[in-house]
Amino acid sequence: MYSIILAGGSGTRLWPLSRAASPKFLHRLGGTDQSLLQATAARVADMSDPDRVYVVTGVAHAAAVARQLPHVPERNILVEPEPRDSLAAVALAAAVVAERDPEAVMAVYSADHLIGRQERFEELIGIAARAAETGVLVTVGIRPTRPETGFGYLHLADEVSPGVHRIVEFREKPDAETAAAYVASGEYLWNAGMFVFQARAFLAELERQRPELRAGIAAIAEAWDGPDQETVFGATWPHLEKISVDYGVMEGAAAAGLVTTVPADFPWSDIGDFHSLGESLDGDAAGNVVLTDAAVATLRSVQDSVVVSTTGRVVAVVGLRDVVVVDTEDALLVCPRERAHEVKQIVDVLKEQGHSAHV
Amino acid sequence: MYSIILAGGSGTRLWPLSRAASPKFLHRLGGTDQSLLQATAARVADMSDPDRVYVVTGVAHAAAVARQLPHVPERNILVEPEPRDSLAAVALAAAVVAERDPEAVMAVYSADHLIGRQERFEELIGIAARAAETGVLVTVGIRPTRPETGFGYLHLADEVSPGVHRIVEFREKPDAETAAAYVASGEYLWNAGMFVFQARAFLAELERQRPELRAGIAAIAEAWDGPDQETVFGATWPHLEKISVDYGVMEGAAAAGLVTTVPADFPWSDIGDFHSLGESLDGDAAGNVVLTDAAVATLRSVQDSVVVSTTGRVVAVVGLRDVVVVDTEDALLVCPRERAHEVKQIVDVLKEQGHSAHV
Repeated sequence: MYSIILAGGSGTRLWPLSRAASPKFLHRLGGTDQSLLQATAARVADMSDPDRVYVVTGVAHAAAVARQLPHVPERNILVEPEPRDSLAAVALAAAVVAERDPEAVMAVYSADHLIGRQERFEELIGIAARAAETGVLVTVGIRPTRPETGFGYLHLADEVSPGVHRIVEFREKPDAETAAAYVASGEYLWNAGMFVFQARAFLAELERQRPELRAGIAAIAEAWDGPDQETVFGATWPHLEKISVDYGVMEGAAAAGLVTTVPADFPWSDIGDFHSLGESLDGDAAGNVVLTDAAVATLRSVQDSVVVSTTGRVVAVVGLRDVVVVDTEDALLVCPRERAHEVKQIVDVLKEQGHSAHV
Repeated sequence: MYSIILAGGSGTRLWPLSRAASPKFLHRLGGTDQSLLQATAARVADMSDPDRVYVVTGVAHAAAVARQLPHVPERNILVEPEPRDSLAAVALAAAVVAERDPEAVMAVYSADHLIGRQERFEELIGIAARAAETGVLVTVGIRPTRPETGFGYLHLADEVSPGVHRIVEFREKPDAETAAAYVASGEYLWNAGMFVFQARAFLAELERQRPELRAGIAAIAEAWDGPDQETVFGATWPHLEKISVDYGVMEGAAAAGLVTTVPADFPWSDIGDFHSLGESLDGDAAGNVVLTDAAVATLRSVQDSVVVSTTGRVVAVVGLRDVVVVDTEDALLVCPRERAHEVKQIVDVLKEQGHSAHV
């Protein structure tokens, strides 16, 4: 199996740690010494040999990606000339992989998600891969653990083979009431942006739904590995439709009955903000999640808090509960966990004020 | 009148801003661009010509003091070879001043206090100076505004001349109940460590109560401005009794009926911790006291908080009330205002852990 890692997005809700120049996937946020990108690559290592691991990333982070993943061949690091959203990224990977291996089955992952229970993960991806061999597009949806309004949902239908269900449809981010009903019904999964399919099946569906984008990608793939690769890539890519893989292909494929899903019960988080980071990792005896490199963290009467530092400073927190403290070289954030999502507004204000280096 | 500024003490309850290597008095904590030391010098400028302003400080901060107060003559910056508490410091200043001007009346101030209502301050110091001309030792006590247990108190007796009272006795730091009774009675003042007296009257009382210390100071003063100054200073000073001016002289003088006090009603704070710093300064519309130099402070739904930064970083605080955030180059503090006094324990822990550079 081929593993495609999408290493894009800046994750501004993890500001000041994560930002345009220093995106989420490059940071050690899993409580280990691996970045999220490295953890993602490690997660697929037993399923894909290094030459079957591909990363799609942007020009700003190509060097960092290459250095963080020394085992991934250079030709497998696909560097987009500019961001064109996830459909173009997945299509590029599918086309390049299909050029090299027309029978390829590929799994698509985000570089900045946390996933637990490795054995269960491999088991379910294996089920998805076998389902994909029949030519359907398979999503790996997550059993919801809360009525989250920040995710899209998949509406499950009947089981077509053990562990594999048909999908009625993709649902966009719901309001709180709808989300609660989804969770209560047991018929909905979170759309975690995790897909498994044959490269050629995906490209066929792309051809059916987005022929222009398919043509552009085909031109790029044809020139790939040849003398005109950069010229064709640079001339074609910026004109590709900018749309997500969900809206651009998966929803239409689901409507055509071409999508199935594998409901997954392993721990999963997209680490949407520092609050959810705290939810995703095991805390210490006081419930604190402390991620520090060289920093000396001194917590005194602190509970259920998230403390992150990338500096060598002493970080002293006293007498607080449910707070987030994030300490980086050029910016500092202090807020309650329940307002951690508001850092996006802070970033907007900083942008308006012209502090572009800090966002 | 001579003005003596005692520039000692590290103010560890203002950690991480203030610390042994970077004491409170060198920092801009008054909400202006002056350090507390500079503000103290400015406060006495209309009462004492520059050549009548003296500063007593330690070897570690002599250079900083000299640079912050360029108008104070070098010979008036008295640098203690090592800290011997406040009695030795005041006695040294009194002896040096008396050598130069036997009739001198001197006022003694701490370099790290905040004082408001300048005209009233000058008026009351003037009253104290006239009282001192009769040969008594005059304290300037502060009308208490709360039952503070962290200060010593002066027990007032009858008024001996307009604005000047006899003192029954000095009281050490009381418990909470006693402090409340003191405040309710109206008969007690905070001992703010502010004194006015004739140099020779103080030295006479020192001679009576602490003849050994007086002899040591006399030897130092005799050698002062001569070729043996440093030798005598260095050989004698380390053997002087280490005691505060209150315990060492003022209490005994009060018992002998030699102390009067001028009750003062100007705003005063020793800035004991960041909470009291917040109390001492005018906040913005949301009650926040924000002291930042180059830093960009972004406060969103924050109330009644104290935010201090000496770095050029972005400091973003969201959705908190009554907190203290202090951001320095090598350390960060976040705590509720009501626990601001606990930073002393943080400093102790850091010392134990060997992080001496940070304390």
